[in-house]
Amino acid sequence: MIDQKILRFRTRGRGTTEVTAEIERVVRSSGIRTGVCHVFVQHTSASLMLCENADPTVREDMETIMRRIAPDGDSRYRHDTEGPDDMASHARTVLTTSSVTLPVGDAKLLLGTWQGVYLWEHRHAAHERSMVVTVQGEP
Amino acid sequence: MIDQKILRFRTRGRGTTEVTAEIERVVRSSGIRTGVCHVFVQHTSASLMLCENADPTVREDMETIMRRIAPDGDSRYRHDTEGPDDMASHARTVLTTSSVTLPVGDAKLLLGTWQGVYLWEHRHAAHERSMVVTVQGEP
Amino acid sequence: MIDQKILRFRTRGRGTTEVTAEIERVVRSSGIRTGVCHVFVQHTSASLMLCENADPTVREDMETIMRRIAPDGDSRYRHDTEGPDDMASHARTVLTTSSVTLPVGDAKLLLGTWQGVYLWEHRHAAHERSMVVTVQGEP
Repeated sequence: MIDQKILRFRTRGRGTTEVTAEIERVVRSSGIRTGVCHVFVQHTSASLMLCENADPTVREDMETIMRRIAPDGDSRYRHDTEGPDDMASHARTVLTTSSVTLPVGDAKLLLGTWQGVYLWEHRHAAHERSMVVTVQGEP
Repeated sequence: MIDQKILRFRTRGRGTTEVTAEIERVVRSSGIRTGVCHVFVQHTSASLMLCENADPTVREDMETIMRRIAPDGDSRYRHDTEGPDDMASHARTVLTTSSVTLPVGDAKLLLGTWQGVYLWEHRHAAHERSMVVTVQGEP
Repeated sequence: MIDQKILRFRTRGRGTTEVTAEIERVVRSSGIRTGVCHVFVQHTSASLMLCENADPTVREDMETIMRRIAPDGDSRYRHDTEGPDDMASHARTVLTTSSVTLPVGDAKLLLGTWQGVYLWEHRHAAHERSMVVTVQGEP
């Protein structure tokens, strides 16, 4: 059994948006009780993060770490067509992940207590981002 | 066809524990011959690593690299409620992965000769960690 | 419904090879219209990258970033049996990913316009690399 939906989000520029509830809703409407849920971002400058969902400073600290690993406007970058955050955004996407697969049990996402799924916009400008959610399993 | 089990591991603090055999056992008992096996850690300060399984210094060197990218007790972190390894552990989890999906063929994990699956505890204290293993495929 | 194939690629040493078309071909021949496609590299010193597919300098800049995070021949590495790129290659594999799962819809990979799948060889020498492609879903 399989169900597939496309979700769209309007981001407000660099930063995270929790999308756990929207994914959970797709799982619930699929009628699948046991299986897996695959979430895929169709972009190369926004990604997904499974992260601690209680304290927002965790995501702020992740920005701090990313600013060091893949800084905006690094003089060594050759790709800067769309500005100083262009290559940094691609790198942050590669170093995190474009998709997450989550277990489904009892018709719910089997996340740990402190796990949330976040869409991570890496560009400074607001963007519309689409993700494909595919639920597979048994009713 | 689908099978889902929860495995529990007691870690001894920061470091890796090989879990390949335990995952293999779930695959074998599922009766599935061809498909995929999804392994998901339900925590935000422990993660999974697919790593060279012959020389333990590879995993020690990974700790060296992680100490640079996401050091304990960095003065720029804002999240430090549970101590200097708190934010570092979340960051290491985000920069590695909370889940791996492995191909299953002939009722076995189709890993390469040198690939092992490791549970990577990022906190210095021992913890109990749970992972959900979901096998999907055909008998 | 499930289909599984092994693809083999001869790399020319460190750098990327686009493999999107080869994966797409496995999806097409599987007869599956809706589902997911899992691609798994059976090695610990080559990995996969979902990356911007228009400008090759993006992948060159990713090499620049990787040279900083996991440099060849770092004096702190203990694992160097196969030379100065040995540990760096394992680290690059762990920090990126050994597998990607891609959504399948209308019998095609549902990639975004600018997304390509790349096999990333991390060793300086040429290697033969194998990947297992598993497509699961409904006809």
